[in-house]
Amino acid sequence: MREKLGLIGFGAFGRLTARHLSPWFDIYAHDPAANDGEGHATLTDLATAAACPTVILAVPVEALEATLAAMGPHLAPGALVLDVGSVKVKPARLMDDRLAPGVRVVGTHPLFGPQSGKAGIAGLRIAVCVVRGDRDARRVAAFCRKALKLGVFEVTPEDHDREAAVVQGLTHLIARALLAMEPLPTRMTTASFDRLMEAVDMVRHDSPAVFRAIERDNPFAAEVRERFFTLADQARGALGEG
Amino acid sequence: MREKLGLIGFGAFGRLTARHLSPWFDIYAHDPAANDGEGHATLTDLATAAACPTVILAVPVEALEATLAAMGPHLAPGALVLDVGSVKVKPARLMDDRLAPGVRVVGTHPLFGPQSGKAGIAGLRIAVCVVRGDRDARRVAAFCRKALKLGVFEVTPEDHDREAAVVQGLTHLIARALLAMEPLPTRMTTASFDRLMEAVDMVRHDSPAVFRAIERDNPFAAEVRERFFTLADQARGALGEG
Repeated sequence: MREKLGLIGFGAFGRLTARHLSPWFDIYAHDPAANDGEGHATLTDLATAAACPTVILAVPVEALEATLAAMGPHLAPGALVLDVGSVKVKPARLMDDRLAPGVRVVGTHPLFGPQSGKAGIAGLRIAVCVVRGDRDARRVAAFCRKALKLGVFEVTPEDHDREAAVVQGLTHLIARALLAMEPLPTRMTTASFDRLMEAVDMVRHDSPAVFRAIERDNPFAAEVRERFFTLADQARGALGEG
Repeated sequence: MREKLGLIGFGAFGRLTARHLSPWFDIYAHDPAANDGEGHATLTDLATAAACPTVILAVPVEALEATLAAMGPHLAPGALVLDVGSVKVKPARLMDDRLAPGVRVVGTHPLFGPQSGKAGIAGLRIAVCVVRGDRDARRVAAFCRKALKLGVFEVTPEDHDREAAVVQGLTHLIARALLAMEPLPTRMTTASFDRLMEAVDMVRHDSPAVFRAIERDNPFAAEVRERFFTLADQARGALGEG
């Protein structure tokens, strides 16, 4: 008999999670806005989902605090709780502060999403962070590698967010500026501009909540943005303007 | 017997040009800094190269004025002169102003370079601009399509530079800012950031002269940069900073 897994949040990422974990778990998903388990999850109430031995939080980072408060009373002793948020320092701190002492906690950030993971996730990558003790983080990493065939980075929440501030923060900032300039050229494009537009197209459907998490909930995002603007300004100044 | 083609400038792009045109022309190349025709061109003096029936100018845009002055006396009546510069308004104006009335002139901008054209140029694209009369521009376009298998955009110099200000100008500005932030993350990257870095890598070896042509010699580049900064600032402002 398969183990039960509670999935809190059944939006785009929650559904991707259910699709790839349903071979291994009976998934009980909770999301007030969902009405179709899509064959990968049984929709249920928060208490039932939160009572599973393993619980994955697939809610926007800005909703995490409220979600932790609501599910806290229903968690089983010794349950394993994971998040999948695009930043790690803040979720790790919230989970460690708010969850009862016996609850096990691991932070994760899958480095893919509904678009990039569309054709399957084997070979894609995930960051796994220790929040409460090495052992659970290592087990989660092993499962990701062996069962899901993901590449795993075992990193601290700080190191994760430092890199994410550049990898995600700048990509999103540049993409949003370019999208605001649409329509963009499509005729006389160069290979390099085509790549730039592919980067933009990959993030253009990210929800405003994802953008806010990347930019506001990453403690390193503001300084990285500042640096980018300063350097872009310098490049402009070298041309005698700005 | 094959027609002679004069190639003024035998840098990275001049050499790419020679490699792809040597099946059709006997190429006589001039460049004070070159010492090896690489099997695709015979190195010669300016006067010999400039006296060919077809002359291609593969010098930096900032060197065009001086080059036109130096080669002018040697051009054959009715010679066809083409440039390959990354901007078109300024070269078209210079060539039309400086070349003797009987000389035929066409502006071109190959939308590829030594990196993107490394594995061959068939299927890549080129912009072709009327400078002195439709007929020569159409013939050049036909040769590019049929002999070189390039996709051709027949556009005015202004339309070209408007698009180039975005396609090249912004790509280069973004790339230069990111390169100044190196070392950049390579571990926990997303597919979108990987694409952004591919765009950066494709232009990182462009010479400072190419960057200057793209940014200074394009009459539309400054307004496009302004707009990008304004929109990026707005995206930042929406986060409550800047």
